Amino acid sequence: MENAFNKNSVGLVKPNSIDLKNKLDLDCGKTLDGFKLVYETYGKLNKSKDNAVLICHALSGDHHAAGYHNKNDKKPGWWDSCIGPGKPFDTNKFYIVSLNNIGGCKGSSGPNTINTKTGKEYGPEFPIVTVKDWVNSQKFLADYLDIDKWACVIGGSLGGMQALQWAISYPSKIKNSIIIAAAAKLSAQNIAFNEVARQAIITDPDFHDGHYNNFGVVPKRGLSIARMLGHITYLSDDSMRQKFGRDLREGKLHFGYDVDFQVESYLRYQAQAFVERFDANTYLLMTKALDYFDPASEFNGNLESAFEKTNAKFLVVSFTSDWRFSSSKSHEIVKSLIKARKNVSYAEIEANQGHDAFLMPIPDYLGVLKNFMKNIEVGD
Amino acid sequence: MENAFNKNSVGLVKPNSIDLKNKLDLDCGKTLDGFKLVYETYGKLNKSKDNAVLICHALSGDHHAAGYHNKNDKKPGWWDSCIGPGKPFDTNKFYIVSLNNIGGCKGSSGPNTINTKTGKEYGPEFPIVTVKDWVNSQKFLADYLDIDKWACVIGGSLGGMQALQWAISYPSKIKNSIIIAAAAKLSAQNIAFNEVARQAIITDPDFHDGHYNNFGVVPKRGLSIARMLGHITYLSDDSMRQKFGRDLREGKLHFGYDVDFQVESYLRYQAQAFVERFDANTYLLMTKALDYFDPASEFNGNLESAFEKTNAKFLVVSFTSDWRFSSSKSHEIVKSLIKARKNVSYAEIEANQGHDAFLMPIPDYLGVLKNFMKNIEVGD
Repeated sequence: MENAFNKNSVGLVKPNSIDLKNKLDLDCGKTLDGFKLVYETYGKLNKSKDNAVLICHALSGDHHAAGYHNKNDKKPGWWDSCIGPGKPFDTNKFYIVSLNNIGGCKGSSGPNTINTKTGKEYGPEFPIVTVKDWVNSQKFLADYLDIDKWACVIGGSLGGMQALQWAISYPSKIKNSIIIAAAAKLSAQNIAFNEVARQAIITDPDFHDGHYNNFGVVPKRGLSIARMLGHITYLSDDSMRQKFGRDLREGKLHFGYDVDFQVESYLRYQAQAFVERFDANTYLLMTKALDYFDPASEFNGNLESAFEKTNAKFLVVSFTSDWRFSSSKSHEIVKSLIKARKNVSYAEIEANQGHDAFLMPIPDYLGVLKNFMKNIEVGD
Repeated sequence: MENAFNKNSVGLVKPNSIDLKNKLDLDCGKTLDGFKLVYETYGKLNKSKDNAVLICHALSGDHHAAGYHNKNDKKPGWWDSCIGPGKPFDTNKFYIVSLNNIGGCKGSSGPNTINTKTGKEYGPEFPIVTVKDWVNSQKFLADYLDIDKWACVIGGSLGGMQALQWAISYPSKIKNSIIIAAAAKLSAQNIAFNEVARQAIITDPDFHDGHYNNFGVVPKRGLSIARMLGHITYLSDDSMRQKFGRDLREGKLHFGYDVDFQVESYLRYQAQAFVERFDANTYLLMTKALDYFDPASEFNGNLESAFEKTNAKFLVVSFTSDWRFSSSKSHEIVKSLIKARKNVSYAEIEANQGHDAFLMPIPDYLGVLKNFMKNIEVGD
């Protein structure tokens, strides 16, 4: 693989696409007769086939986790700080698989792909999928790639929920699980924020009950509001203070509703960029997957019982300033794992970046990940 | 005054309305040649005219702070827990004045009143007003009511900012100032939440640049989103957990975008009720008044200097679980007052209701207010 960018980059990468013929029974009761997955891989599968690592993405993520698609790309994949030769998820040692989840909008079966049964775009007809559904779909991908057991499944936020669900759903198919800035279930406040985001999208007149593509429009307003709101909750009060304070964009107040403060300008810009790259139906789906996640609910609300049959070694990581998925939520996971007598390490990283910290190259954080990955033994 | 409801109620009350002829120069550079104020009073002005207390309302409040307008009213005024005979703001001792601020939507000059110059509704042409402008308008009301000096000016949240500004703007006209769950300036996060609310309203196609009344519509969608979002930030994570947890409204998930969780149902209901009683242009104005408030900015960013000429005795109150206006913001006020060698008391109330705690009948809180008010000496 060409290494055009710097010595620690995986360089130029190309997404793969596979049409899986497996039937996928979904939590909602519906079945997908087959589905497409788009994924990238970094590093090489070894002869023992025991060095495969699965990266699970969060709400707005996708398969492009590391490297560059083009020499002119301004930015590498979303977790490039962690994936590459010598990095925590070391491509010299591991074969790393990163996919776009079903329901997504970057090529895998989802609202903006064609339903082969009808020949039409799914749109809002694409079923609401859960974290468990994703894990099942990822299991089929593992089979396809001839991976019997993941050396590690890793994710942050909604991705961490998948890493956790893997350990529960397929105890014999996962050796290690890294659960970062996640929760075993959302709080009422989390659900409330998601509901406001959904209402912003759904009540946008350009939403057309999710059939907006048929009308040649996009519910930009609603998706912008959803993204702005999300963005605030991913940052900490402190990091926003440091980044923007009360700085005025033009040095004075305007006594109108145009931008006065830098933070307003930043949010509007972020929202606009997001609307251009993301799909509203997918955004809705993803927030529901977050809300619905609650593995303990199948065990009378007992998380310890949910962990009973797991065999993975766990690493749980949280960040001090993350208020969207606060450390107390990681503590809940860790305590239940300890009660269930499982092998678990926990690190709370001092960081002021809020929930977004999980994407940042924070030395202590990268160190914790690196140490954990270093101790995973793989064959030739 | 009739006392139809219970022995601690001020009973039936009637709003007063006054057209003040004073010129009001606004911070934005515009001038109001006169303005209407709607207000209520509870208790009687004594002969010495030294027992008058001003209540300042917050973002969505109004002049109706205590008692009932009709025998059939389901709810009393918004601060009925604090105002009445024997209550912290004791109507047996004090003459309490509560007004709807200009820019409001409950009768005082604002976007939904007639601009006498044009004969048309102000709508979005009503100027953006600041906390300082409000205090100046309240000073004219004091003059009209023949009140030379307030025994106390009191407010929570945006109302607390007015109580603070009174002490700075009119040091000789205020004996005591009670500043509850407020801040000397908003943080970037606060401004960001306000900006999302504004964008939700402004981008609603029914907003029509603020001229929605001319089109016979109301930007319901945007105002709903704004209110839902606001509501989340007024509650604490903890209180939402206690109130709703992850309770499902119908005992099961629907795998759709209708209401699954109780908290979603609650937010939608709150938003709908709000849309029926509040005006979108006023909501915009109020959030800007919050964002712009920064009395230190006229003193090279030095809050201590801003307090230098104040003569009032201060009581500052905050609530442990309030994350919209956290205790640290009250500490900033208290520390600056101490540095400026002013008379200040501070109470942090243990409460899990979040920012909304300032409206709740929390015994410790009412006790602190009562003690402070008891020590205010008034004549006959």
